[in-house]
Amino acid sequence: MSTEDKLQGLGLTLPTPPQPAGAYVRAKKTGNLIFVAGQLPLVAGDLKYIGRIGDDLSIEDGYEAAKICALNVLSILDAEAGSLDNITQLVRVEGFVCSADGFTDQPKVINGASDFFSQVLGEAGSHARLAIGVKELPLGASVELSAIAEIR
Amino acid sequence: MSTEDKLQGLGLTLPTPPQPAGAYVRAKKTGNLIFVAGQLPLVAGDLKYIGRIGDDLSIEDGYEAAKICALNVLSILDAEAGSLDNITQLVRVEGFVCSADGFTDQPKVINGASDFFSQVLGEAGSHARLAIGVKELPLGASVELSAIAEIR
Amino acid sequence: MSTEDKLQGLGLTLPTPPQPAGAYVRAKKTGNLIFVAGQLPLVAGDLKYIGRIGDDLSIEDGYEAAKICALNVLSILDAEAGSLDNITQLVRVEGFVCSADGFTDQPKVINGASDFFSQVLGEAGSHARLAIGVKELPLGASVELSAIAEIR
Repeated sequence: MSTEDKLQGLGLTLPTPPQPAGAYVRAKKTGNLIFVAGQLPLVAGDLKYIGRIGDDLSIEDGYEAAKICALNVLSILDAEAGSLDNITQLVRVEGFVCSADGFTDQPKVINGASDFFSQVLGEAGSHARLAIGVKELPLGASVELSAIAEIR
Repeated sequence: MSTEDKLQGLGLTLPTPPQPAGAYVRAKKTGNLIFVAGQLPLVAGDLKYIGRIGDDLSIEDGYEAAKICALNVLSILDAEAGSLDNITQLVRVEGFVCSADGFTDQPKVINGASDFFSQVLGEAGSHARLAIGVKELPLGASVELSAIAEIR
Repeated sequence: MSTEDKLQGLGLTLPTPPQPAGAYVRAKKTGNLIFVAGQLPLVAGDLKYIGRIGDDLSIEDGYEAAKICALNVLSILDAEAGSLDNITQLVRVEGFVCSADGFTDQPKVINGASDFFSQVLGEAGSHARLAIGVKELPLGASVELSAIAEIR
């Protein structure tokens, strides 16, 4: 089953890759690695789940926000690699969570991305990870997600 | 026009690479990648633009701080690669902004680095990027910038 | 003297690599690089040095916490590379410090990791570095440390 089929099985299609929020590009390739720029929970240009996890937003909200970020990462990897089937492995995922005072469940939030990568990419979706609780994110986003992937 | 000439056209020269702020080195090479350590807005050893963006400092201050960090990144890349002309591409730039409560314009701050890389390196200055709003940075810096570059 | 001997000389042995705190793996290999996931100051599954540096905890506490994170990074590198003697160089270390308001000595905290890498790995332990002061870390950890290493 292709990754495209797996996405459809989840009721999802790849969106158009989001526009960068500044003077940079969405991804860069070096050798067989792709570095994907930080992605926000944007859906068709609208930022979803604005605010601070543990205060304005719940862990479940954050989980969904991280999943949207992950879908945007996949849309970029698909465009850069020609197809998600050319991804041999995700290498590293970096998750930044806009966190309320005392909120320490960043891993549960970023699992929204990790679980999704695993569902869509299977074994190739396995990755090392950082989960960090930060003070503020661009445009008031609750989650920002960047990734490094290896292509064939 | 060489990158050295472009810098001169901007009224700038490459500084001596800053000393690391701890028990590490300014950069490491692996294969044809150079990983540059986190750089602060240091000018001849003096830290500029100390404080929090959105509170003590404006977006414009942060933009200038990010540009100084970027100049320091270039000074290190030049020393490590022999010449900036050996940089085939910047791959990724990571920008950390010491942010006041509710400050969410990190991209406008880190554009100070991204715009500058583009002016000096041209097409090779294009990069993927993270912009993150953090609570505190070393020595009270308003911006910290790290980068990964590819050399020929 | 092998790295194993150097560790013993420091009165230390490599622990069992900690379990990931979420839906990811402890490390991924791509080419001759290993990306190690973010490590917390866990000792036999117990989190040490919980809290905020500069408030609940001192710089010295943070230094020790960073050292424990570094030992966990080494345990993973040893398992992934077959032996620490297969590490040709650490490339980059990323240190995130849960920081009190106004705490700006992140470099002194992360030196706990950098000094330790140097003691155990010698010249191969030299690395580029980021030190960032963040608001919250998973499980209330005071330090999180990730790393990229090159193997032969």
